[in-house]
Amino acid sequence: MRLTRYFLPLLKENPAEAQIVSHRFMLRAGMIKQQAAGIYSWLPLGWRVLRRIEQIVHEEQQRAGHIPLLMPTLQPADLWRESGRYDDYGQEMLRIRDRQDREMLYGPTNEEMITDIFRAHVSSYKDLPLTLYHIQWKFRDEMRPRFGVMRGREFLMKDGYNFDIDRDAALHAYNRHMVSYLRTYERMGLTAIPMRAASGPIGGDNTHEFLVLAQTGESEVFYDDRVTQLKLGAREIDYDDRTQVAKVCEEFTTLYARTDETHDPALFEQVPEAHRRVGRGIEVGQIFYFGTKYSEPMGALVTNAEGQRVPVHMGSHGIGVSRLVGAIIEASHDEKGIVWPEGVTPFHAAIVNLRQGDAASDAACETIYAGLRARGLDPLYDDRDARAGEKFAAMDLIGLPWRITVGPRGLAAGKVELTSRRSGETEELSPEAAIDRLAQIYAGR
Amino acid sequence: MRLTRYFLPLLKENPAEAQIVSHRFMLRAGMIKQQAAGIYSWLPLGWRVLRRIEQIVHEEQQRAGHIPLLMPTLQPADLWRESGRYDDYGQEMLRIRDRQDREMLYGPTNEEMITDIFRAHVSSYKDLPLTLYHIQWKFRDEMRPRFGVMRGREFLMKDGYNFDIDRDAALHAYNRHMVSYLRTYERMGLTAIPMRAASGPIGGDNTHEFLVLAQTGESEVFYDDRVTQLKLGAREIDYDDRTQVAKVCEEFTTLYARTDETHDPALFEQVPEAHRRVGRGIEVGQIFYFGTKYSEPMGALVTNAEGQRVPVHMGSHGIGVSRLVGAIIEASHDEKGIVWPEGVTPFHAAIVNLRQGDAASDAACETIYAGLRARGLDPLYDDRDARAGEKFAAMDLIGLPWRITVGPRGLAAGKVELTSRRSGETEELSPEAAIDRLAQIYAGR
Repeated sequence: MRLTRYFLPLLKENPAEAQIVSHRFMLRAGMIKQQAAGIYSWLPLGWRVLRRIEQIVHEEQQRAGHIPLLMPTLQPADLWRESGRYDDYGQEMLRIRDRQDREMLYGPTNEEMITDIFRAHVSSYKDLPLTLYHIQWKFRDEMRPRFGVMRGREFLMKDGYNFDIDRDAALHAYNRHMVSYLRTYERMGLTAIPMRAASGPIGGDNTHEFLVLAQTGESEVFYDDRVTQLKLGAREIDYDDRTQVAKVCEEFTTLYARTDETHDPALFEQVPEAHRRVGRGIEVGQIFYFGTKYSEPMGALVTNAEGQRVPVHMGSHGIGVSRLVGAIIEASHDEKGIVWPEGVTPFHAAIVNLRQGDAASDAACETIYAGLRARGLDPLYDDRDARAGEKFAAMDLIGLPWRITVGPRGLAAGKVELTSRRSGETEELSPEAAIDRLAQIYAGR
Repeated sequence: MRLTRYFLPLLKENPAEAQIVSHRFMLRAGMIKQQAAGIYSWLPLGWRVLRRIEQIVHEEQQRAGHIPLLMPTLQPADLWRESGRYDDYGQEMLRIRDRQDREMLYGPTNEEMITDIFRAHVSSYKDLPLTLYHIQWKFRDEMRPRFGVMRGREFLMKDGYNFDIDRDAALHAYNRHMVSYLRTYERMGLTAIPMRAASGPIGGDNTHEFLVLAQTGESEVFYDDRVTQLKLGAREIDYDDRTQVAKVCEEFTTLYARTDETHDPALFEQVPEAHRRVGRGIEVGQIFYFGTKYSEPMGALVTNAEGQRVPVHMGSHGIGVSRLVGAIIEASHDEKGIVWPEGVTPFHAAIVNLRQGDAASDAACETIYAGLRARGLDPLYDDRDARAGEKFAAMDLIGLPWRITVGPRGLAAGKVELTSRRSGETEELSPEAAIDRLAQIYAGR
């Protein structure tokens, strides 16, 4: 993309309404615009990040064998009466009446609707196990929406639902989700720690939240700091292998890590003092096993191998897709702006032309631009007639992880500069070598 | 995807509620499930088609230089008061009050919001031309939702908005959209004819609808049948070239083609009788130039080259993404089921194993499955223990354009069958040759 043909409305001033760094940088970097309390437009740069996150979630869900579909945003109230949640949910549920005066709601989650889909179409254990998920806009009418997309009212979420014949099978689904989530967050450059959690309005006993450590987190967290060193890395996972998957979960949930909701001071005392940490965390996902909480009242029964009709065992599993954009910024920024991890960056690299209009500089930039695109990369070429300082500040603010700087002086020696946004380190390379290096960095992402 | 691990709930019976063929086949093929009047879940197979259509729209919009963003589904009423449309819009607008009793609405379209984004960030002609678009769920509270996703209440639409300094520039944007839409529909295997239309609640004088001919269409259409022969084909378009783009538009809009709203019997009489046709059409898109209808009342002004503040010239441009799924089926089916064009098919090919459990058949199917995936294709492998007739009927119903049939008899001669869903023609090939043939068919799609 050439910046002169893009829509990237940067703000010079810090917006007064933004209390936390991710909200401030998202506004300043032209990623979002508030349209109403807790309701945002995703401007082009923000949309690109949202889309990358969505893509990673889709890939990792499907790698785990989960099947995508799409449920609507609006739901009939009657469905929620079947589970009893229509009356329980309170004012966070946005209730709507259509022109026929039918009661509707803007879905805050989808346990009822997915159970409805299941009971309409599945009746035998032979069709299990089954996990269906979608990524869809949801609404929670928060009393005090704040912190930008971190606590918005209209938000994008992945929610998935497993259907299994019994508790053991459903717990494998639970574990499978945990492992697939670990990989999902790692690909986004995040350390998200699974912590025992409370279940809230979804229900069930088994539940873990995934928390990203950040000073601005809404939850107080207590943990053994060795948990932050765990990595799934590139190991091969067979998501059908119950033992392997359970082992990974054990590895990631044995060290103490809890939120204030489930914190147990006596247990925490047993963590060696040198490793005991209290901090804050941002919740970016949660998994639940709730058994037959919905299938029983809603009549989602299947015939088991013995020919009996039994309620199906379920769980639900969410990732806050739009919230993750904020969480990643909270976890990865400096005073100049955002520092995107390679996995989610809106553009793979910046090309900064120090002397727009200089024939050699323009030609070199075009060559690099075309060369990166030919390697499947998306560069953002700052082709404005602007000062170098302004261009650097813009790229630092929007946080692309790599910048290629092109100017007459370097070109005279056949060189351009490749700069890491994270470390600030710069290397002089030929244009071809800079392209190769970036292709290498992004290989397999 | 292996069918035993997929969720494809086929219906044997014709659903009573479906009046038109696309609705019937979408229900029978397990593509959608109604959740409330005019509100659908997109089951896995339906979701895949929706996603493919979305992807084509994104690619063609971006090829034309248009920039993606994403506006929210809910909008504040006050924004619509600025244009005067809040009171004008009538009961099709779903009006909502949140917990703070603020008036909101579920967006049926986005002229006001995009104008708000523009006026907040753009103030100079130097930042023009600019076209922003999104693909987002919308709601129109139809009195009588019907025909499945063809006339639903919650629907997915691409809507784009151009901002230009003057009428000429905006008319180029109008033409650019027309050409990009022609390519978009062609990639989906559709002949969509641009026809002069009436503007309705969007406003403006210049407007064309794109209609797909189908007996179940909601509009009566009058046309010179030579218009159905026009093809954009593979010709290179420079979307910045006003002359070239205008010429393509002229080519596609000179022959008589109008809906009942704009039909002119006297003009129609001038079409040679042998070419005069009256039929029905499904609207799958519409483009508008409406000048300063929104920018004037909403104060979206830019400084022109002479230093004056002038209202920006705008147009809007829509493609009915979810409706297209139905429209494509209306245009492409037979008595046995859907016939997907290659551009939008949910899976590229079916693999039907005639003798599940037979070692040679199973092994050949696995080889073909892996081979197609290695070539970047998505096969659907019917690995159920079911009769051949049942497998063929299922694949005919869901309409994958190509089927590879594998059985012991053919394998004994080293052959499998490759069958075209459209023509019914079958060819005997080695497994490797069948994979090559499919890779060839889908090359560049």
